[in-house]
Amino acid sequence: MIDKLAIIGVGLIGGSLSLALKQAEAVKKVTGFGRNRKNLERGVELGVIDDFGHTIADSVRDADIIVVAVPLGSMAQVFAELETVITDTTIITDVGSTKQSVVDSARQCLGKRFGQFVPGHPIAGTERSGVEAGFAELFQRRRVILTPLAQTDKKMVSTIDRMWQLCGASVEHLDVGHHDRVLAATSHLPHMLAFGLVHQLSRLSDHQEIFRFAAGGFRDFTRIASSDPVMWRDVCMANGDSLIELIEQYQQELDLMTEAIRSKNGKALLELFGHAKSKRDSLIGSC
Amino acid sequence: MIDKLAIIGVGLIGGSLSLALKQAEAVKKVTGFGRNRKNLERGVELGVIDDFGHTIADSVRDADIIVVAVPLGSMAQVFAELETVITDTTIITDVGSTKQSVVDSARQCLGKRFGQFVPGHPIAGTERSGVEAGFAELFQRRRVILTPLAQTDKKMVSTIDRMWQLCGASVEHLDVGHHDRVLAATSHLPHMLAFGLVHQLSRLSDHQEIFRFAAGGFRDFTRIASSDPVMWRDVCMANGDSLIELIEQYQQELDLMTEAIRSKNGKALLELFGHAKSKRDSLIGSC
Repeated sequence: MIDKLAIIGVGLIGGSLSLALKQAEAVKKVTGFGRNRKNLERGVELGVIDDFGHTIADSVRDADIIVVAVPLGSMAQVFAELETVITDTTIITDVGSTKQSVVDSARQCLGKRFGQFVPGHPIAGTERSGVEAGFAELFQRRRVILTPLAQTDKKMVSTIDRMWQLCGASVEHLDVGHHDRVLAATSHLPHMLAFGLVHQLSRLSDHQEIFRFAAGGFRDFTRIASSDPVMWRDVCMANGDSLIELIEQYQQELDLMTEAIRSKNGKALLELFGHAKSKRDSLIGSC
Repeated sequence: MIDKLAIIGVGLIGGSLSLALKQAEAVKKVTGFGRNRKNLERGVELGVIDDFGHTIADSVRDADIIVVAVPLGSMAQVFAELETVITDTTIITDVGSTKQSVVDSARQCLGKRFGQFVPGHPIAGTERSGVEAGFAELFQRRRVILTPLAQTDKKMVSTIDRMWQLCGASVEHLDVGHHDRVLAATSHLPHMLAFGLVHQLSRLSDHQEIFRFAAGGFRDFTRIASSDPVMWRDVCMANGDSLIELIEQYQQELDLMTEAIRSKNGKALLELFGHAKSKRDSLIGSC
């Protein structure tokens, strides 16, 4: 049982974590903090958080666990403020989509408290954002990746493991770099591709008509282009090297297809599409 | 009420059309034809079609409406066979994803019967294929685009309009070239992009692990990469020029993003993502 949880950044992920732990009766009190006071008041109204503080120091006082759920670009500043106020037993964890950049910030800003930081990333979300988008079931049957380092306190890692398991998630531990490379492929790259497509089409003069004829395939394909722009700018900045490598590799796939179409090489297209379909069907399932 | 409907190619679209018209009590008898006898037998078992013929001539005898629902690459051959067997009152329509190539084939193969051909395209589907994937509700609240020409018999166009309305669809008429350009953007390009991503990732040495960490966003984004490879090869061949133009334009979007990441231009990324999100939210809805 967590006596007090502090959530810095009460949005989709932070809010859902609070709701999930409350539903599991695994937390006594949740205090929020964020820059937008209206959002925090709404969080209290919705029962997502019990109260909120006016400063980070206020909010995290006596917290057993502090969850940092702000965009990647704001992590360093939060860590720097936390370093001055936490005690020896306080656990800090985060939910950032990249881990190397967060670990670097934590190492730099938390100083001797760095061992109390458990880097984490729940592989869950929707394209919606903000406290009103949160729901208790978000993490059920989803994976949460923790990327603890040699210095990370092992008991604290176990506590964060349990916290996520109580939300219905299965927890795995990965090396920081490995996490960032895998997520670049399955999450960061697809988001870039979806943003890019909608941006491209919305610049066409007849884009309103084009979107009018969009069917379910287009809607699903571009769903992630409705995600939070600030969050995704920060992901791009934090995991840029992996992402650039993958985008360039992807452009080679597009070159392959363009060349096959241009040279009317139906065989090459059929092989490429057939290979993709069979891999997707077998590895992800067709639903 | 249609006395007899003949469906050449009893797959997801042809099968669903039959089921929808049966559910609407708008057809007395549906005869199927296709190259795969087992598929046709399964269609009869499932009640999708009432019976099937052993030749095209057999199957379409006395049909009021013939729906050609084969991959684009097989259309010309079907039209050539139909030309020799239909009467003055038989209506032919199709469900092909591109319209210029089908109209060209029909004009060439149907000869003096060309005016009896109503080019059509239901903007509906799933990533699944085959007769077992069909369901009566597939076209409800979906659009069907007809692209009649000056020579197309106006009464026959009205009959096909009504046929689709009875399936729950709303019907619009577009110019052939306009259809192909709009669909290249909202359907053909996204399919290429999805096939390309899955192909790329499946070539990485650790692709099995990469797919293991795929979340809902990736599943939705790549759903259309489980579509029928033959159908999509044919679409690429038929609408290649529009598609190549769009892929090249898309490559420029990727270049923009890569350059912004490389030069740590967060402002440019935020603008691009923000623009895409707001367009998608307003034009498609966030769900």
